[in-house]
Amino acid sequence: MFITFEGIEGSGKTTQIERLARRLRGAGREVVVTREPGGRGVPAAEAIRALLLDPAQELHPRAELLLFQASRAQHAEVLIRPALARGATVLCDRYYHASLAYQGAGRRIALADLRWLNEFAVAGVHPDLVVLIDLDVATGLARVRSRAKSGRGGPRGAGGAGEVDRIEAESLAFHQRVRDAYLEMARNAPELFALVHGSLSEEAVERSVAAAVLPRLAEAGGPRDLHPGIASESKLADTE
Amino acid sequence: MFITFEGIEGSGKTTQIERLARRLRGAGREVVVTREPGGRGVPAAEAIRALLLDPAQELHPRAELLLFQASRAQHAEVLIRPALARGATVLCDRYYHASLAYQGAGRRIALADLRWLNEFAVAGVHPDLVVLIDLDVATGLARVRSRAKSGRGGPRGAGGAGEVDRIEAESLAFHQRVRDAYLEMARNAPELFALVHGSLSEEAVERSVAAAVLPRLAEAGGPRDLHPGIASESKLADTE
Repeated sequence: MFITFEGIEGSGKTTQIERLARRLRGAGREVVVTREPGGRGVPAAEAIRALLLDPAQELHPRAELLLFQASRAQHAEVLIRPALARGATVLCDRYYHASLAYQGAGRRIALADLRWLNEFAVAGVHPDLVVLIDLDVATGLARVRSRAKSGRGGPRGAGGAGEVDRIEAESLAFHQRVRDAYLEMARNAPELFALVHGSLSEEAVERSVAAAVLPRLAEAGGPRDLHPGIASESKLADTE
Repeated sequence: MFITFEGIEGSGKTTQIERLARRLRGAGREVVVTREPGGRGVPAAEAIRALLLDPAQELHPRAELLLFQASRAQHAEVLIRPALARGATVLCDRYYHASLAYQGAGRRIALADLRWLNEFAVAGVHPDLVVLIDLDVATGLARVRSRAKSGRGGPRGAGGAGEVDRIEAESLAFHQRVRDAYLEMARNAPELFALVHGSLSEEAVERSVAAAVLPRLAEAGGPRDLHPGIASESKLADTE
């Protein structure tokens, strides 16, 4: 089963993925934890990540998007597809819905182009469940900035501790558009999305995530079908 | 006017671009010389180039293609479009026909996907003339290898002097497919391509290039029309 976590900066995705991974491993599952851009143990994708998050790089929106997709293609082929094929549960911090939110609503690239690119990059490696941790933008960005100030750096670890990365540094309006886009996708594809409120305590959020994920994992049971019932086409169309 | 130079490794594009640039500058034109992947004076595109040519990187074909397109989008927006807008003549060592040849014929990615990506990346920045310097593959690769052995490195300058880069290291059959694809594109779009035989002396090739380019430049005359008569659509369709 392939589960992606989405949400604005500071929504707590990273923490919740760690908590869920611990829980699933405790239950005897093989869990692969990874994240975008980049991918744990995928050197080429991580090299692209470094470029994407470098605050010194001035990237045109189309170049930025193509870099995200290059990293995604490498990540999907080298790590995610093989992990799913051997029956592991893959938890990924952001995936292609992030492009629809950040490059679509954020950078205003046409959704049709984003969908084409998402499909080209992942070539059929689609999430079975998207956990959207929703949080208001001011709270999320305050968390990111206090983390940067405390010298722990962003969860992306870009630019070294104490720095806010290129995407975190975008305007409040940008992040608001991203949040709204995520909420709209969740409304339009309720069978794919689990909407979790990120303003609660870490423990409460963990319980909501578990309540969304565990029944689906139990249903999915054994080694995963790489082509689940819902066609990739209709999933993407639903998120418009 | 935007002129791209295409051809297999070792075909002599770099030398011929330098010679043509000298000639055009001598005639008082502003000439911008650049190359793909990357782009002179475009830091983000050059960073992507370094990744693409690094022999240590194992890139999935779709990831490789998306990286080429990311570099191309940045290069087209930051360097080529502004140079053309101010009336400069741009000479570019490889452009999107290289993706059709290398990723299409070489890596066997579908041409329809390549055309979509090429168009998305360049967003209307199309060449007015493609100079294809044709050469048999054995001669081209022998030139590349003797250059590497002599410690001068490839024209790309990847991996330091004396090394053959990731794409130069591909098989003879790969480069043969690339050459055949270039020749087919030239046959199908004679109004766009100038086919030059690269096996002659540098001076003879220079004369052929000048004979192809100078009349078109004279026709084009003053500051360039960014939307020349032939639609971009039909150009791409013709290269099939």
